[in-house]
Amino acid sequence: MTTKPRILKGFMELSPSDQILFDNLMNIIETTYKKYGFYHLNTPVIECEEVLLAKTGGDTNKEVYRFSRGDTKMALRFDLTVPLARYVAMNHKSLPFPFKRYQIDKVFRGENTQRGRFREFYQCDIDIIGSETLDVAYDAEFPNIICEIFELMNLNFQIQINNRKLLVGFVEQFRKDESVNPIDVINLIDKRNKIKANEFQTRMTEYIPAFEVLNEFISISDMRGLFEFTSRFEITNPNYMIGLHELEIVFSEITNQERSDCVLKHSVRSKLNLSISRGLDYYTGTIYETILLDSPECGSICSGGRYDNLASAYTNSKFPGVGISIGLTRLFDILKSKLKVESTDNCHIDFLVIPFDDSKINEAGRVAKELRSQNFKVDVVKEHINLKSKFKYANKLKVNRVIIVNSDLQLKDMKTGEQLEFRL
Amino acid sequence: MTTKPRILKGFMELSPSDQILFDNLMNIIETTYKKYGFYHLNTPVIECEEVLLAKTGGDTNKEVYRFSRGDTKMALRFDLTVPLARYVAMNHKSLPFPFKRYQIDKVFRGENTQRGRFREFYQCDIDIIGSETLDVAYDAEFPNIICEIFELMNLNFQIQINNRKLLVGFVEQFRKDESVNPIDVINLIDKRNKIKANEFQTRMTEYIPAFEVLNEFISISDMRGLFEFTSRFEITNPNYMIGLHELEIVFSEITNQERSDCVLKHSVRSKLNLSISRGLDYYTGTIYETILLDSPECGSICSGGRYDNLASAYTNSKFPGVGISIGLTRLFDILKSKLKVESTDNCHIDFLVIPFDDSKINEAGRVAKELRSQNFKVDVVKEHINLKSKFKYANKLKVNRVIIVNSDLQLKDMKTGEQLEFRL
Repeated sequence: MTTKPRILKGFMELSPSDQILFDNLMNIIETTYKKYGFYHLNTPVIECEEVLLAKTGGDTNKEVYRFSRGDTKMALRFDLTVPLARYVAMNHKSLPFPFKRYQIDKVFRGENTQRGRFREFYQCDIDIIGSETLDVAYDAEFPNIICEIFELMNLNFQIQINNRKLLVGFVEQFRKDESVNPIDVINLIDKRNKIKANEFQTRMTEYIPAFEVLNEFISISDMRGLFEFTSRFEITNPNYMIGLHELEIVFSEITNQERSDCVLKHSVRSKLNLSISRGLDYYTGTIYETILLDSPECGSICSGGRYDNLASAYTNSKFPGVGISIGLTRLFDILKSKLKVESTDNCHIDFLVIPFDDSKINEAGRVAKELRSQNFKVDVVKEHINLKSKFKYANKLKVNRVIIVNSDLQLKDMKTGEQLEFRL
Repeated sequence: MTTKPRILKGFMELSPSDQILFDNLMNIIETTYKKYGFYHLNTPVIECEEVLLAKTGGDTNKEVYRFSRGDTKMALRFDLTVPLARYVAMNHKSLPFPFKRYQIDKVFRGENTQRGRFREFYQCDIDIIGSETLDVAYDAEFPNIICEIFELMNLNFQIQINNRKLLVGFVEQFRKDESVNPIDVINLIDKRNKIKANEFQTRMTEYIPAFEVLNEFISISDMRGLFEFTSRFEITNPNYMIGLHELEIVFSEITNQERSDCVLKHSVRSKLNLSISRGLDYYTGTIYETILLDSPECGSICSGGRYDNLASAYTNSKFPGVGISIGLTRLFDILKSKLKVESTDNCHIDFLVIPFDDSKINEAGRVAKELRSQNFKVDVVKEHINLKSKFKYANKLKVNRVIIVNSDLQLKDMKTGEQLEFRL
């Protein structure tokens, strides 16, 4: 009796060639994060339930995988931000601040497995954490990092940037009266593509009587337009002005970096979008979202923003921060299923060494050793099978270069069929 | 009210500088595995309980973390071999055979957290899986791989090699009568350092009347000695002869590789040890263990061997294989706590760019960008703090090279204090 081998629904497991593509993407992310000076952090998968859920409520709470062991209540991490908060609160005395860390790891959520939703998926996070304060200049680093990563992935993307303080200040400036809560207005802006245009107008007019001003505001797409709007309406609200100043710093850094670029990539890639407003109860300043222009309906593939206090669940010390997260498992799923990205031609090895017959197996091993000492990735056929079967194996591996070991060495290009003598 | 931030007992979480050391070790392992032509496999952390425990019993079963979600019973992987078996059984039709895969991932076991035992720890596995058959020549690859990895880690180690068929054949040749089960004898050999010498002799004599022959046999430490023993006692047992032949192939490959080495590392590192016998119910041929010569009491840090049938829990097809596993979390713990290995001087960045004053922040950003485009890892101080505080940050990061951006660029070596003009 055998058990049917299977994996659970909502869990991703790749074929060897898809795994190569996945690893290439992850490698781009990790290499870039490291280049920008982030430390690697590796927190446990399993945490103490009470600690992990210290500040989590509602839907997230229900999705968390939990179990007990004796008296110990445990839970699997559902994101990488809570473990970071816990880590900073535990270790802040020995950490350098601003503390820049990256973590690329699986997180776990028992949510419904609709199309493109996974229960176990990679998040690739970077955050910069300050102690007590953190200059807004750090917010300006993220568009460059995001841009560099997705350029390297050859994606057609757009980074959308907004500022929560600007949104709040706008509402405070234009609302009917002080009973209008900016959060409600921002929530409604966020929903505007999900409801009918006239319903949006009716409901919005309750909050902002000058509906056309709001409409104009959320249509602004660059800093020049925003400055013009600000001066035309003589806006003076303090939250608005701080938000405006922060956006100015973020976009000036994009321009600053661009000056040393041949192509004006960044300013094309990074756009002001005053209608995005994610993470209402968490983010307090800059907000980032990243959409794939070829499939915007998939939503943001890399989001984040500025928050005032990372670790308030664990300490009274204040740790403001700014960060982003790339949902790699979901991005990979979109690339494969929507954008039909083919798995790379890159084989996992550079050479397959084939002994012409059994008498050449030892020599083949020495050839492989020599190539490996030159840092090539090499496999050797050691089965006592005929030459045809050895080439069948080469084809299954999709290897490009085969070395046949006989009285001499022959290098065969498996794509062109070309063969020539080879010397080590 | 805040929750006390903490992690669970038996879980490893490292400081940033220890993490750099840990990552260096993992990188050595992964790079070497890739160089030897292994595919990367990444299986889910959470598996279907019934599938994961299809063939597991006893103690392991008790240690597995399990939980339910609706009707679905789930479990966390406790090793990387069972998921490999499940993967091969599911996908064998599309895989190339021999299928060489590596997986470096955390596994989870709720065991007692004695000294050096972890509940969440990294295993670094490679296996070569055949379909129906797998030549013993593949067994011969592993000592070279193990040797290369631990040489790169600068460890003082010894690889010990044995063969289960040889052990079984020896018992069959020298046992009192056929009622003696080779397994019992091998079990007793395995325990001989844990019991008194005279007790060992008394019990062993029940199985093998010629106790001195057994003693001589398990003391043999090279192939020459084994051949001499074999011919002197005119051994003809078929299991013994197959085991002898397999060992010969494994050791001849070690010699073969050695010929192209300047230093005779491998033959010094790899030793025949006829008294090791791990994984009694699983391994059927070659066995490997690796001990640290400076702390042999820690036991094997890299073990494995040949098995006849990987996926019998899931399929009637036969998949023989051979593999090893490095327990990286435990190895790291030994290095730190026993061998007092210092965390590396390697900083996570190559340069820290410091703007002399606030007017130089933009220029500092451009310098960082230029260095990153040359693939250096770079951080920039963007806080509006004085120069002294910026250097305090540099010291906390333990960075070796600082670039001060003023009207010119100055490169400062933080160890020597030396400073000189720098051009990009």
